[in-house]
Amino acid sequence: MLHFSSNKADFLAGINIAMRAVPQKTTMPVLQCIVLIAENGILKLISNNMDLGIETIVNADIREEGSIAIDAKLFSDIVRKLPDNVITIKTDEYFNAEITCERARFKIAGQDTEEFSFLPEYEKGNPLVLSQFTLKEMIRQTVFAISDIETNKLMTGEQFFIHDREFKITALDGHRIAIRKILLEGPFPDTNVVVPGKTLQEISKILMGDMEDKVLLYFLENHILFEFDNTIVLSRLIEGDYYKIDQMLSSDYETKLSISNRELTASIDRGTLLIRENDKKPVIMEIGDEVMAVRITSAMGTMEDEIAIEKEGKDLMIGFNPRLLLDSLKVIEDEQITIYLINSKSPCFIRNEDQSYIYLILPINFN
Amino acid sequence: MLHFSSNKADFLAGINIAMRAVPQKTTMPVLQCIVLIAENGILKLISNNMDLGIETIVNADIREEGSIAIDAKLFSDIVRKLPDNVITIKTDEYFNAEITCERARFKIAGQDTEEFSFLPEYEKGNPLVLSQFTLKEMIRQTVFAISDIETNKLMTGEQFFIHDREFKITALDGHRIAIRKILLEGPFPDTNVVVPGKTLQEISKILMGDMEDKVLLYFLENHILFEFDNTIVLSRLIEGDYYKIDQMLSSDYETKLSISNRELTASIDRGTLLIRENDKKPVIMEIGDEVMAVRITSAMGTMEDEIAIEKEGKDLMIGFNPRLLLDSLKVIEDEQITIYLINSKSPCFIRNEDQSYIYLILPINFN
Repeated sequence: MLHFSSNKADFLAGINIAMRAVPQKTTMPVLQCIVLIAENGILKLISNNMDLGIETIVNADIREEGSIAIDAKLFSDIVRKLPDNVITIKTDEYFNAEITCERARFKIAGQDTEEFSFLPEYEKGNPLVLSQFTLKEMIRQTVFAISDIETNKLMTGEQFFIHDREFKITALDGHRIAIRKILLEGPFPDTNVVVPGKTLQEISKILMGDMEDKVLLYFLENHILFEFDNTIVLSRLIEGDYYKIDQMLSSDYETKLSISNRELTASIDRGTLLIRENDKKPVIMEIGDEVMAVRITSAMGTMEDEIAIEKEGKDLMIGFNPRLLLDSLKVIEDEQITIYLINSKSPCFIRNEDQSYIYLILPINFN
Repeated sequence: MLHFSSNKADFLAGINIAMRAVPQKTTMPVLQCIVLIAENGILKLISNNMDLGIETIVNADIREEGSIAIDAKLFSDIVRKLPDNVITIKTDEYFNAEITCERARFKIAGQDTEEFSFLPEYEKGNPLVLSQFTLKEMIRQTVFAISDIETNKLMTGEQFFIHDREFKITALDGHRIAIRKILLEGPFPDTNVVVPGKTLQEISKILMGDMEDKVLLYFLENHILFEFDNTIVLSRLIEGDYYKIDQMLSSDYETKLSISNRELTASIDRGTLLIRENDKKPVIMEIGDEVMAVRITSAMGTMEDEIAIEKEGKDLMIGFNPRLLLDSLKVIEDEQITIYLINSKSPCFIRNEDQSYIYLILPINFN
């Protein structure tokens, strides 16, 4: 029978991490539990939604080793509302759990961990070591471009590609591509895998995101393993060959313009007020010598704006889905951005000098 | 044709106030508009959901007087997203509105104000003058106890009762009563009206709530008028005689206890985690000499807690709907509260020494 005490703050932090792999819905009710397991002097919390599994170690004073599976939602709610003090958990042979803190005492039913899907065994090899901040930023700046349509599985993931000391993350959905690249400090074996977007979104929420904090990535046979702080996150990879997009990333252009990201974002954001959810109205950009006109027209009305630009090359009129443009603009940290265009039928590129970010967006018709 | 300019901050503040009387749904589409009307050198924004009407004056530089009705949601969204600068509005003979700010320009369709329901004429008489803070607090501390079931109209409102320099607000829903009283600084005619709860909720959101800011209440034939800052809010009253509750407010008791509001609230709040939305489980309080045990039991588990009390009179075991208790506890500012009880079938009273607040809650069975 399991019996331990843990400080509320530590314990709750562990629960919050484990919650990220508890499925909202499942055909296996036991997966809606968090497993608490004390063995070899260590207390672990485990959760698994079958795509993603999490194990996190929590500081605890273990009086008796054992394990129990407890409904994750109820358990986390109870712990969250207990006083900020030491919490003691004690289970009996019928898998009832008693949770005490100061004078408050809960008794709830848990269950045997026999039917739980524990994480598979794996061998680790050498890790790719990144700062948590860097990985979190790379995910944030690309993951919006994945597709949420499950019929095209590869588009629901992001390509992690390593070659020649360059680590590149790519996301695309058929209308746009988002790429982030960094140079690695040392060599690493060539790697080319597709990681589920949902995994990356959950990882982002767990990572503390400090520059000094590290995260270790292990590329396994069919899995990717993230290891950081007291936590491991094991995710399935998406099978299949990712899209070849190199020939789309030409650096030719006919028009190059430099513009304030803040002004462009504010203007398009405002204009989208005129566009209802499923209405496919374009934002039309008319690029002149020193000014770009921005226009949106719908049944609700019209918006016109003018923004100062620096331009090289030809004048151009081109239309985009305003929401796709906004998605990219909002994740770019640079205040002054550069946009490269060829003609009204070809994609635009938003990228910086060293191409550490590249956003490709297809234009749409505007008649 | 209407033509004026106004500072964004002032204009948006006015719009936000007027929005509070724009109905979500209505059979009269024109009511989903805000009316902008400039006459006699004053710009007013007007809205009306037929229960509640609002007029608010906004500082503006009026170039041409006139009026227009504009879709409230779209219009407020546009103004909110414009730059923080001077906004100019200009309408044409077809009731199109042009909204410009810096280089951004919107054109949207408005409509004639002919079909709009303007606020009725009224004569004001003498007002009851209160601090905005006081009125807001009195509403907040009672309005949770109204009923949201429309079949019993009187219970959806609050009684405003003035007699002998005492101003009393009462709300009840058949399971509980909430009363707040203040002493007025001067005499005021006897008053007894029922104000819709929704009106009071909206008023609370508009009032700035500062001690020094005043609000004037005018009791009219079938309406109540609130006047403050640059705004008037006119609301229908609910017709009918409010409940006579004086004989329920006996001050007899068999048990009197003093307890920490914070501890009792935390304990019950925690326990309600075990109770699903429509599950009618009681919180059972077992009042002993120096300690009160708090217990909640449901199919999900049990919670037990003990809280230190100071008690006069008999021991008692009594059950309550935990949510009704919490509603009252959460609005009481006092950290140490006093609860008066008679027996397990009679209501409990939570009230302070001078009875400036009284909360009556009926017990429920606990077998």
